[in-house]
Amino acid sequence: MGKSILITGGARSGKSLLAERLTLELGRPAIYIATAEAHDAEMEARIAAHVSRRGPEWRTVTAPLDLVGALEESDGQGPRLVDCLTLWLSNLMHAEIDWPDAGDALATTLSAQTSPVVIVTNEVGGGIVPENALARRFRDAAGAINQRIAAAADEVHLCVAGYPMRVK
Amino acid sequence: MGKSILITGGARSGKSLLAERLTLELGRPAIYIATAEAHDAEMEARIAAHVSRRGPEWRTVTAPLDLVGALEESDGQGPRLVDCLTLWLSNLMHAEIDWPDAGDALATTLSAQTSPVVIVTNEVGGGIVPENALARRFRDAAGAINQRIAAAADEVHLCVAGYPMRVK
Amino acid sequence: MGKSILITGGARSGKSLLAERLTLELGRPAIYIATAEAHDAEMEARIAAHVSRRGPEWRTVTAPLDLVGALEESDGQGPRLVDCLTLWLSNLMHAEIDWPDAGDALATTLSAQTSPVVIVTNEVGGGIVPENALARRFRDAAGAINQRIAAAADEVHLCVAGYPMRVK
Repeated sequence: MGKSILITGGARSGKSLLAERLTLELGRPAIYIATAEAHDAEMEARIAAHVSRRGPEWRTVTAPLDLVGALEESDGQGPRLVDCLTLWLSNLMHAEIDWPDAGDALATTLSAQTSPVVIVTNEVGGGIVPENALARRFRDAAGAINQRIAAAADEVHLCVAGYPMRVK
Repeated sequence: MGKSILITGGARSGKSLLAERLTLELGRPAIYIATAEAHDAEMEARIAAHVSRRGPEWRTVTAPLDLVGALEESDGQGPRLVDCLTLWLSNLMHAEIDWPDAGDALATTLSAQTSPVVIVTNEVGGGIVPENALARRFRDAAGAINQRIAAAADEVHLCVAGYPMRVK
Repeated sequence: MGKSILITGGARSGKSLLAERLTLELGRPAIYIATAEAHDAEMEARIAAHVSRRGPEWRTVTAPLDLVGALEESDGQGPRLVDCLTLWLSNLMHAEIDWPDAGDALATTLSAQTSPVVIVTNEVGGGIVPENALARRFRDAAGAINQRIAAAADEVHLCVAGYPMRVK
């Protein structure tokens, strides 16, 4: 069975670098599953810069919606890093896909993987209640999906200022 | 002496379910002290749905303001779950009651209970400074009352993605 | 070598009181390095009230921008408490000073101190993405500088409801 690790934390808390390090410790080369999509030239340039920074130990695939498919296709080829769950949720909501169902399907897929999976997500519920109703709905969904995937994961870590704290 | 446990965490971090589980481990049946009040039919329906979900092991009482009275009346009848401190603070501020005094009275009452008390509260100070002055004032008050009750509690846990991290 | 400790946490999480206690445990008298500046009479009165509350065991110096200079000048004279890093960053950005460079210089200075340094900072990335572009930029910078100083510090603690959780 492939180990699954969830890394959560606030914005700019060092989650992605920590997750990259952990993934490479689980095997090389590794597969980076990006949930971000390039919608314009600026975004394309930023993504290309990230690919180049990560270097030749990584192969990058893009999965803005079909994360389950990307995990199933890449299983057996090395450890995977999914960056990130929160953006995937945002993509699902934008495409009006049933996100609780998608979260359940992801949790089931995780448990069936033979290669390891590291997933980055975000803590978004630590501020005051947002005035914007859409922001409140997103915040609730993000918290719910974090709980769902944390329950399925073997390990959960909270990243603070670049360092992991063990949650599960 | 009844043990007192404070469960804090962000929105949708799984605090309430964790607190329900912990309360039932301390004894059955348990008493649910709700600080939310039904102001309209929609809210009444939501509260009724929660009561029905918790099931017959729980008796529900409502204490939007007089939390001290609700704890004193129910002492000796089983473990109590207070859900939640942040909403209680909001009710106090809205009713223009002196909340630091009320927090002190709650802390004193906690120390005198013979049955256990589990209290749910919220982390609301982890975002950027709110632009709204009222939101800043509420954020400061919520942090202050969390510190006051944490100091009086026997245990404090931070809930992240459904899992508790021991704080005190 | 002087030990360096970073205390992070949300607004009103009890960081400053915790940091004051830790600093006095490292030696007395102690030096309080304030990054806040009095711009008007109200602010002056608040600062004077803080100085008076801390009492005679503390000497207060002000360093809204030149934190490196304040640390170098006070080294060898007792433990220092810097309160806080987030406000210092805000001062740097307002003065249009290159904050990543300043953060690097601070990290280098920390490693060269012979007396201990305790630094208070803030978690500001735990809420939803701010709508305001300036707030997003500040949030990113605050997270980056927290990571930079955490990497240089001997210890990092997350303060929750007045209690420290060990991060590093």
